Amino acid sequence: MNDSYLNFVNSPFGARLARSLGLPKPEVLRRYRADQPEFGGLVALGAGREPHLLDALATLVASIGVTSVAHASAGLWVPLANRHGLMTGRFEPADPGSQGKLAALLFDASGIEDSTQLEPLHGFFHDTLRSLGKCGRIIVLGRPPESCATPRQWTAQRALEGFTRSLGKEARRGITANLVYVEQGAENRVEATLRFFLSPRSAYVSGQAVRIAAASSATSDDATPAFDWRQPLAGRRAVVTGAARGIGASIASVLAAEGAHVIGIDIPTARDALDATMRQLNGTALAFDIAAPEAPAQIAAALDEQGVDIVVHNAGITKDKTIAKMTDAAWQSVIDINLSAQERIDDALLAAGILRDGGRIIGVSSISGIAGNLGQTNYATSKAGVIGRVQSMAPHLRARGITINAVAPGFIETQMTAKIPLAIREAGRRMNSMSQGGQPVDVAQTIAWLAHPGSAGVSGQIVRVCGQSLIGA
Amino acid sequence: MNDSYLNFVNSPFGARLARSLGLPKPEVLRRYRADQPEFGGLVALGAGREPHLLDALATLVASIGVTSVAHASAGLWVPLANRHGLMTGRFEPADPGSQGKLAALLFDASGIEDSTQLEPLHGFFHDTLRSLGKCGRIIVLGRPPESCATPRQWTAQRALEGFTRSLGKEARRGITANLVYVEQGAENRVEATLRFFLSPRSAYVSGQAVRIAAASSATSDDATPAFDWRQPLAGRRAVVTGAARGIGASIASVLAAEGAHVIGIDIPTARDALDATMRQLNGTALAFDIAAPEAPAQIAAALDEQGVDIVVHNAGITKDKTIAKMTDAAWQSVIDINLSAQERIDDALLAAGILRDGGRIIGVSSISGIAGNLGQTNYATSKAGVIGRVQSMAPHLRARGITINAVAPGFIETQMTAKIPLAIREAGRRMNSMSQGGQPVDVAQTIAWLAHPGSAGVSGQIVRVCGQSLIGA
Repeated sequence: MNDSYLNFVNSPFGARLARSLGLPKPEVLRRYRADQPEFGGLVALGAGREPHLLDALATLVASIGVTSVAHASAGLWVPLANRHGLMTGRFEPADPGSQGKLAALLFDASGIEDSTQLEPLHGFFHDTLRSLGKCGRIIVLGRPPESCATPRQWTAQRALEGFTRSLGKEARRGITANLVYVEQGAENRVEATLRFFLSPRSAYVSGQAVRIAAASSATSDDATPAFDWRQPLAGRRAVVTGAARGIGASIASVLAAEGAHVIGIDIPTARDALDATMRQLNGTALAFDIAAPEAPAQIAAALDEQGVDIVVHNAGITKDKTIAKMTDAAWQSVIDINLSAQERIDDALLAAGILRDGGRIIGVSSISGIAGNLGQTNYATSKAGVIGRVQSMAPHLRARGITINAVAPGFIETQMTAKIPLAIREAGRRMNSMSQGGQPVDVAQTIAWLAHPGSAGVSGQIVRVCGQSLIGA
Repeated sequence: MNDSYLNFVNSPFGARLARSLGLPKPEVLRRYRADQPEFGGLVALGAGREPHLLDALATLVASIGVTSVAHASAGLWVPLANRHGLMTGRFEPADPGSQGKLAALLFDASGIEDSTQLEPLHGFFHDTLRSLGKCGRIIVLGRPPESCATPRQWTAQRALEGFTRSLGKEARRGITANLVYVEQGAENRVEATLRFFLSPRSAYVSGQAVRIAAASSATSDDATPAFDWRQPLAGRRAVVTGAARGIGASIASVLAAEGAHVIGIDIPTARDALDATMRQLNGTALAFDIAAPEAPAQIAAALDEQGVDIVVHNAGITKDKTIAKMTDAAWQSVIDINLSAQERIDDALLAAGILRDGGRIIGVSSISGIAGNLGQTNYATSKAGVIGRVQSMAPHLRARGITINAVAPGFIETQMTAKIPLAIREAGRRMNSMSQGGQPVDVAQTIAWLAHPGSAGVSGQIVRVCGQSLIGA
């Protein structure tokens, strides 16, 4: 739970020592605090040819109340910003220091249709990256490659992934770099996602590519209920499994802070901790063993009267052994609790209509589920299955306006990781672009974004919460 | 080009020292040699419920002439093998040593339709993994998740990825583990792919998931021309760019050994090396700068008369710098040579019908293109673009029976990597399941498999040649 190296090198003496020895100095990440402004500072805008998303960006900039400057590549921004009544200026590469450090770099690449048009990406970040302050934010916006009209356009848009991921690895200093692919017609669905990636809430989310889909003809986008950005989950009911402690308790706490009524589920042996956690949040505690055959019906019965809007499948276990030493029971229990139980519970809630239209299902996968891991054949199988669950269910749920996504945590500082031997723990902590482990709240905030009523365009996706871990597949 | 640590720890003295100090001892990988049998030893078969691919596996086992043993999970294998006239026996977990070391483990998971049915994976590999010899092979076979009939089946099939990747990380000792997803109706298209993954040709390919698609109604599968497994590319003409030296020369050499007539292209300044390489292979040397505007037309003209069957876009450059220090010229030249030039050349060859129906296009991407890399915004952008090129063109080319794929090399021992500073080079070499860098021939053999007439079902895919590098996204 405690990264003593991070604390040490950020003390006055430790910082001097690290500097003189050439040791890495991970940045103390800025995280969201309710008593501090979420957004602020100067945002620089860049663009490729014929950008399609500047209007959406102007709406965002007006909504979060930041000041913008336009890079030479985004000449269109100044008149547009003026029309939106925004204060704006020009970014001067010759004298970048004069404007102070930038808080964020936004690049609209949506109009790039050919690999020969990629140059403005270089121009913009070449000029601006050094002016981006600590814990700054980089967002590249494009069009989903698979929905592009021509192979040339698809190719150029797909190239943005390699660019954004490289930038995340270069930037360091707690800076995140993410890519948001906005489908044509989804321009009015981007704000919740862009707010998340600009906010300190996404402190440990970097190197990700996220897609925002347009409303399907079957659903009406206007059906998105009105919400308050300060309490977006007000009036919503959220189930969180494994909510007694650790990451689950953090998820429950963040969802409650966003206004949700949380129904925490955990095993009967964790009842006291669950009760204590739920009491603090004015939530509801339900002690069930989710792996029990009768659990889906029991959970459905308990939720039936008022229904539920958000289901977070956080409960999970590990029983690590190499496969030659892994018992059948260790295999089966991990698969059952981490994967099959979620399938049974979702099916029960969906069949009975207890999960309401416009609802949210959020699974918890893992970097191990993406890349595999030594000694975790059972766990990685279950967590890869969660990815399959998300990808297979998303199209089925679309007509009801229900989204399904998963987070895939990397190295998160918990009681579980505190038990890992020091050398392996240190490797896990440092092998990412933040040079540190994440906190449970980083996972929780990512889930809150996926649960947001404004995230209707985000479905079928796996978002890593890993500080851009080197590890992948 | 020379991994002195690998050589040292595999010397008698070095092996003793490594053992006493607890140092890692990477295995000397067994690679394909024309003067040694490609296949041999005992293959163990396992299966989940209602396996659909045992017939295809029996054809393979008969074709490559190995002996099989059936694990208890694959009871159906014994009568089936007998019907095919194969020698077979039963794997006895109580006394695995009695049968000698196994050369390969094959598991047919194609009938698994629900996460509750995954247990036989554990049972089979639990019993057999320790009996698998050095440089052994693991292949798990399943159905492509996205073509499954139900979300439950999709989920269970997707879970196989986490399993196979974990197994690859556990197995060590030069063992590879790969997953082959066989679409329904593609059972007759699996042999070239399964041969590759069983062969020493795939020494450095592990942790990959490959899909084999059925013939589309537009193409007739019977159109696959007859070929000889010993000279599968006989009568085919293959263009290789950047063929003068390094990986390109190795690609040219392997394709020629498989029977192809190779047309090597390289820049005019490399003409002497190109001529020398092509002379050895009885190939044709063409000195062109592929980035020149007139190159596509010139290459098309040079190939027009006889046409071409295989195009390998191997030519590529790096110009590494952090983006703030990267010149516009360094950005542009890398994008142009590594990506845009390929687009122009393919378009010219396709438009004029010079690339014949049933042809093969093979690009070279990179782990950097998948995961991004520090100091390589230009290179990673170009290599991510190659992925987009493959994914976007595959559906367009399907009706003509042309496949397009890419390899993504990890750390390959070349003159380029020999210049990397020692500490970084050592990290790159060891951070994969083989604990060593790959050889140019490993990339070349993977390309030869994709170029194979029997690989008609493999298109739109990116295959890493990285020894299952830890690095990914």
